Amino acid sequence: MDRQDLFSFIDSRKEDLVADLQSLIRQRSVSARKEGLEQCAAVVAGIMVKAGINTRILNLPKDGRHTDPSNTAPPIVYGEVKTKRKTSGPARTLMFYNHYDVQPEDPLALWEHDPFEGVIEGDYIYGRGSSDDKGELITRIKAVEYYLKFHGDVPCNVKFLVEGEEEIGSVHVGEYLTRYHYDLACDGVVWEFGYVNEQNIPIITLGMKGLLFVELTAVGPIRDAHSSLAVLIENPAWKLVRALNELTDSTGKILITDWYREVRDLTKSERALLQTESFDEIRFKSEYGIDSFLNNAQGLGIQNALVSMPTCNIAGMVSGYTGDGAKTIIPSTASVKIDFRLVPEMDPLVQFGRLKKFLVEKGFDEKSLGVRFLHGEAASRTDVNDPFVTAVSESAREIYGDARITVSSPATGPMDSFSKSLKVPCISIGSTFIYAKMHSPNEFARTDLLLNTTKCMCGIIDRFSSQHSKTGSLQH
Amino acid sequence: MDRQDLFSFIDSRKEDLVADLQSLIRQRSVSARKEGLEQCAAVVAGIMVKAGINTRILNLPKDGRHTDPSNTAPPIVYGEVKTKRKTSGPARTLMFYNHYDVQPEDPLALWEHDPFEGVIEGDYIYGRGSSDDKGELITRIKAVEYYLKFHGDVPCNVKFLVEGEEEIGSVHVGEYLTRYHYDLACDGVVWEFGYVNEQNIPIITLGMKGLLFVELTAVGPIRDAHSSLAVLIENPAWKLVRALNELTDSTGKILITDWYREVRDLTKSERALLQTESFDEIRFKSEYGIDSFLNNAQGLGIQNALVSMPTCNIAGMVSGYTGDGAKTIIPSTASVKIDFRLVPEMDPLVQFGRLKKFLVEKGFDEKSLGVRFLHGEAASRTDVNDPFVTAVSESAREIYGDARITVSSPATGPMDSFSKSLKVPCISIGSTFIYAKMHSPNEFARTDLLLNTTKCMCGIIDRFSSQHSKTGSLQH
Repeated sequence: MDRQDLFSFIDSRKEDLVADLQSLIRQRSVSARKEGLEQCAAVVAGIMVKAGINTRILNLPKDGRHTDPSNTAPPIVYGEVKTKRKTSGPARTLMFYNHYDVQPEDPLALWEHDPFEGVIEGDYIYGRGSSDDKGELITRIKAVEYYLKFHGDVPCNVKFLVEGEEEIGSVHVGEYLTRYHYDLACDGVVWEFGYVNEQNIPIITLGMKGLLFVELTAVGPIRDAHSSLAVLIENPAWKLVRALNELTDSTGKILITDWYREVRDLTKSERALLQTESFDEIRFKSEYGIDSFLNNAQGLGIQNALVSMPTCNIAGMVSGYTGDGAKTIIPSTASVKIDFRLVPEMDPLVQFGRLKKFLVEKGFDEKSLGVRFLHGEAASRTDVNDPFVTAVSESAREIYGDARITVSSPATGPMDSFSKSLKVPCISIGSTFIYAKMHSPNEFARTDLLLNTTKCMCGIIDRFSSQHSKTGSLQH
Repeated sequence: MDRQDLFSFIDSRKEDLVADLQSLIRQRSVSARKEGLEQCAAVVAGIMVKAGINTRILNLPKDGRHTDPSNTAPPIVYGEVKTKRKTSGPARTLMFYNHYDVQPEDPLALWEHDPFEGVIEGDYIYGRGSSDDKGELITRIKAVEYYLKFHGDVPCNVKFLVEGEEEIGSVHVGEYLTRYHYDLACDGVVWEFGYVNEQNIPIITLGMKGLLFVELTAVGPIRDAHSSLAVLIENPAWKLVRALNELTDSTGKILITDWYREVRDLTKSERALLQTESFDEIRFKSEYGIDSFLNNAQGLGIQNALVSMPTCNIAGMVSGYTGDGAKTIIPSTASVKIDFRLVPEMDPLVQFGRLKKFLVEKGFDEKSLGVRFLHGEAASRTDVNDPFVTAVSESAREIYGDARITVSSPATGPMDSFSKSLKVPCISIGSTFIYAKMHSPNEFARTDLLLNTTKCMCGIIDRFSSQHSKTGSLQH
């Protein structure tokens, strides 16, 4: 069979694929610090051009229309390969959405290798972004490169949208999608990321949770004061503790008025899908060194929490002296970063308004407790019955022998912007081992999974190309 | 009058005094980081020798007897000048207790000058430790130097005990006092620090609050985890918030069982003294940029809080990602540094036991919320009616025209170790302007106050020498 020969060719290119991934890892691109983003976009563009993809750098005009005019948006790397095939109607277009930015590498001391070196040990490649998302990106670029090299053509149009702000909430992707609407038209999007579980079974994910990321800052004396004065001066850290304590109860339930108002139950087909999902509780606990789950969740309760439970998570908190030993002060400020995961129908801005109102009602006025919106993204879910789901799951089963489909990832991405702007299904599938330490020290990718996922992407290109197009009206 | 000539001589030595203070400031000595302590002890010893004081470096044996064997105690600089006067009984001995260590300088960005440079602008000398305690120390060394230079003798024995761990709770002073008991015998101690208020009136302080300094650490997953998993993994920052919220209410009242059990009311003479104290509420509020006091304290309520209110203060708190922008993680740990100020009869170790017991009772077991004792110091108060109080207050009034006596500082020092070990009265008087930003960026000393306090120390030596001795039995 034709595809098996292609797959053998892909296996023979392993060193080439790994070398390009190392180049990507070696270019730091920490969006939280705005570090190396334009440089990394150039590295991505170079690898895409080498792959035979027509590549352009897209920018947003610096016209002050952005939410924060001092933040200019990092570029998007756009790529395109048009099929040479003659078809009766317009050819179908498959889009790969990825990102070249990574999470900050800290705490650096816990890394066993330089996070920006791409050290190889056996089947493992270590580095920040090795999985999330440079590893995923490389499987897609290489799938197209090897497909082109092997066949001399692709059977459908392929587009790439590689952004540089995913790890800080894809701040400008919506604006890019609006501005480059015609260029980005397509019939389906392969989402930037996907897991492979403990039994080497890929998890195909049809949705993402939303996110509201905020920062609360309690204000105390204009400078740190000697803590003997704590009898007179209110300590902002205490104020922050009291405010936080109002937000949730010990079960994780969010106490903000009307927080769950729009949350709907799962549909019948979503519930049916939930029943087919699996989760290795013992392995998960051992990976994270925990004895039990929050609220002692188990069985279907775990799947249900991952898919449909909104959260209020403290991602960071700081006040006063945090060095070694003792320093006896009343800190001048205390602040916390909170990420709320949202489920469908929850609007980040509406929820932000509810949070602010609730804090004021509880006695924390804006002057003494500032509440800052950092970003928001609504949840999104692709219809379980879309034919694109079949194309992806068949391709996954061909390579991995099995596949699981899940209603929604517990994580967040700008899927809602894509599905609303492009009006096409978005599906996550990828190469990342479920315990590959994404966002943590010692993140890694596995070569076997990178190669298999590259093959799987080729299968998706094949199957997708034979489905019916609907992009004609946008491509004029 | 003889003393006025001495005072004129002191005024003429201003540049000499300031230059020695600069030398002290320029030698970093941050005890929290164990930085530069032995070097600073040497700088102090050099200035003392230059002043004509017989000086020795005292050490503790490194025999593992310390609480933490890895922490060797920084040296104490010990100094002594014996009077040549013939008296019927043994000569009286006055001790100056000071410290050469300083608080950490951070946040560095808020300093207008290098904190270890000793920049002079008019009457102000800026730098970490310029007031606390290098400025205080220099007034005492220089008082003895100028007294010796002017008179060729001192009228009583004088001793210096200059330690290097005051800012981290005088960890080893008790051990030094025990080991060098006979060397350190004396009849009265001038404490290391004292304030001068907004009207240039010195505040003579007869006691200090105690301190219990602890660190609580909540433990979560073995590494930072992606925050989408907050539906399953308990966040240690939330655990810490809940634990903290149990400790106090919004008025600052400590809710730990039996916390106030041993607290006694002020005595009649303490209450009488409290009535004579003054406090500039408007200036204080403007210095710290606050609109109101905790619990809207006012009038006598303020004095009472400063003298006799126990506190539970968050000195520092940290968890997870605290950099710019967003990082969506469940932190692996969350910790807080808390200082509890104690009043007489509260035992730091007993209070620590109560804290631990309380947390366990509230459901925070030691495995998931570690409770670490960093140090403890009991409160201490010198009898309002001790004759030493008269010697000090008369000397202060001579120089400053007025003086206030207060029952207790709201701050902490190892006064209890001194009064228990040496069995002598301890009194605080010093040169530090009340808003000299001790423990904060831009700490400063004022030359006028340094000179006046140097004179005041000479007056204390004079008056003290004519009071009756009781050290004979210890000096054998």
